[in-house]
Amino acid sequence: MTASPLLGIVGAGQLGRMLHQAAIGPGLALRFLATSADEPAAAVHPSHRIGTATSADDLTAFAAEVDVVSFEHEVVDVDALDQLTTAGVVVRPSAATLRTVADKLSMRAAVAAADLPSPGWCRAETVDEVLAATKQWPNAVIKPSRGGYDGRGVFMVDAHTDVAGLAGQLLDTGVALLVEPRLAFECELSVIVARRPGGETVVYDPVRTLQVDGQCRQVTVPCGLDPQIVAEARQIALAAADALDVVGLLAVELFLVEGRLLVNEFAVRPHNSGHHTIEAAVTSQFENHLRAVADLPLGDPGLAVPAAAMVNVIGAADGSDPRERLGDAMAVDPAAHIHLYGKVPRPERKVGHVTVCGATAAEAGDRAWAVVAALGGAVRRSETTEPREDVAV
Amino acid sequence: MTASPLLGIVGAGQLGRMLHQAAIGPGLALRFLATSADEPAAAVHPSHRIGTATSADDLTAFAAEVDVVSFEHEVVDVDALDQLTTAGVVVRPSAATLRTVADKLSMRAAVAAADLPSPGWCRAETVDEVLAATKQWPNAVIKPSRGGYDGRGVFMVDAHTDVAGLAGQLLDTGVALLVEPRLAFECELSVIVARRPGGETVVYDPVRTLQVDGQCRQVTVPCGLDPQIVAEARQIALAAADALDVVGLLAVELFLVEGRLLVNEFAVRPHNSGHHTIEAAVTSQFENHLRAVADLPLGDPGLAVPAAAMVNVIGAADGSDPRERLGDAMAVDPAAHIHLYGKVPRPERKVGHVTVCGATAAEAGDRAWAVVAALGGAVRRSETTEPREDVAV
Repeated sequence: MTASPLLGIVGAGQLGRMLHQAAIGPGLALRFLATSADEPAAAVHPSHRIGTATSADDLTAFAAEVDVVSFEHEVVDVDALDQLTTAGVVVRPSAATLRTVADKLSMRAAVAAADLPSPGWCRAETVDEVLAATKQWPNAVIKPSRGGYDGRGVFMVDAHTDVAGLAGQLLDTGVALLVEPRLAFECELSVIVARRPGGETVVYDPVRTLQVDGQCRQVTVPCGLDPQIVAEARQIALAAADALDVVGLLAVELFLVEGRLLVNEFAVRPHNSGHHTIEAAVTSQFENHLRAVADLPLGDPGLAVPAAAMVNVIGAADGSDPRERLGDAMAVDPAAHIHLYGKVPRPERKVGHVTVCGATAAEAGDRAWAVVAALGGAVRRSETTEPREDVAV
Repeated sequence: MTASPLLGIVGAGQLGRMLHQAAIGPGLALRFLATSADEPAAAVHPSHRIGTATSADDLTAFAAEVDVVSFEHEVVDVDALDQLTTAGVVVRPSAATLRTVADKLSMRAAVAAADLPSPGWCRAETVDEVLAATKQWPNAVIKPSRGGYDGRGVFMVDAHTDVAGLAGQLLDTGVALLVEPRLAFECELSVIVARRPGGETVVYDPVRTLQVDGQCRQVTVPCGLDPQIVAEARQIALAAADALDVVGLLAVELFLVEGRLLVNEFAVRPHNSGHHTIEAAVTSQFENHLRAVADLPLGDPGLAVPAAAMVNVIGAADGSDPRERLGDAMAVDPAAHIHLYGKVPRPERKVGHVTVCGATAAEAGDRAWAVVAALGGAVRRSETTEPREDVAV
């Protein structure tokens, strides 16, 4: 009946929920692999299979039901995806791309291979190697190569740290470590690219991100940096998308250090730094992810408004529920776009976001924070100068 | 868990589908009354009851499952809604409002009672009354007071018509007739108002609509008319919303005749003349319908872009399926917003729409028509000067 493929989305969190919202317009058919029926996407979409992305059996059964397998997170059994690919299943992005991005060390190696700028780094598999690295960089960051997200799995060390003890603990979990210097960056940027199987790409406007405790809190666009830096950020992101042979979305997180851009992290899925594109861009990151993995022509990624800000709604320490304050928040700013994901709030859990479009990024930011404050879900904090790790969902 | 009520939507067509899309952001919970599981809204939403809006039993069972009963169409058993209201069910808009709007004669009476301008009209319940009216207006329009939509139920008569024969046929169906003069209007406008239970309202920018064979084909905004006319159109719509005590949306269709605005039709639901608000307004008509019936603060209805055009995708005579041409259409204009409702195409059936935002309404219109042409679903036709009836879904 329809020429568009049935797109299988592994994962059914808020990113899946926003993919569903984007699929309704062009009428793209989705099916989710959800861990439970009350996950954010499954709660608002009629078609899902219950299963986990780390189970080869679940992935195999799911793949048999859809035309294309794609993802809203990267915590996937990549070996199973290899086997599915061999068996003829269309997996977008590919298992190879996911494997590279899932491991911070292989990701850094890919950045180096593509001749893209990154912070200094080294691989450490023994306590002695960690000690050697932290001698080179007394203020360092140690990250297990796998498993961290939202600021978890990031360890700052300095002259007062028991580096040997920490390294021993981390290495006991069986993963190699990435050690890198702690950078005094001017700001963090993110650039999102959408890429089709044939290599067609579009790139979104670089945004400025603000992390608190390693978790994305605020995104503003335009980023307000020198046009040459902005152009360079786009070029790095496009080159990375080609180097990784991405199909779907690639988010490239960058540090700006002494006027120089350095690649920090990749994500190959819709990204927290692109949520504002729902209202602020002509085509949202979510629609372009779907177009890319369905091998359809990509949509215009340009800004539809002069400026925008997105602020995350984080579960408050007092356990209060932003959903109970929806009316109060709507009254604060009739132009605010309030997104609540249907998640039970827990401290530090992302349960929603607010986007405001405005004349300037600063104005939009102030207004978005006012709405978030009314939701009771977060407190604004001044920009941290800490070098933070963030693979923000 | 959540403070927002569970909103029951009677009907699950494309308007329900777009209500669902709008509900995902703020996390408003919906349930649909659908005639089948493959209706446009039911196909993309997990919660519905199978039933019909003209069955008192189905409406009663549905009302018991939700906190608020609202609607995406007006073909409802209004007597059943009266009984549900008496039993304490929250029905928005009210049965009284729906009753007024469902009947063209009571609608015209309400327009007169509110002292709003309308074309001349009279009620005819006998062939003699119809003949008397068409003597007064030799070029007249005869409409059964109930049951017409999308140009059906509109009969043009002139000196060559067998008026007595036509009138007899129509009266045999048991409904009274509305007879009115055929107007040489300059253009048709539509204005949408959202109104909360307490009377808070917001009003959208008046749009210019183009009907072909009584069916809405194109909507453009800004309408390009004199600011005084635009202001007057807003005032008429706001006054009508108050007069009808609307809760939810009211669409007011207006004729511009010799510089004067005349009320043609009302609809109390999301309206085809507001589909562009998904991308072109800060808050869409769909989100504001939900906010209004949930008694939440209304969102900013202002335009987010300089201009926009919406063109409907109509089933082609050759039975071809626009879904099979989605990729071709996306390639025509990367900034176009293509909406396909998941409906099997039939000639003259609305199966989707395309919205383009642009610098001017004319530019946006040209671009939207080019995308619709690529979808194969409609042919552009020059503006008709016929006075057409349109209660477009």
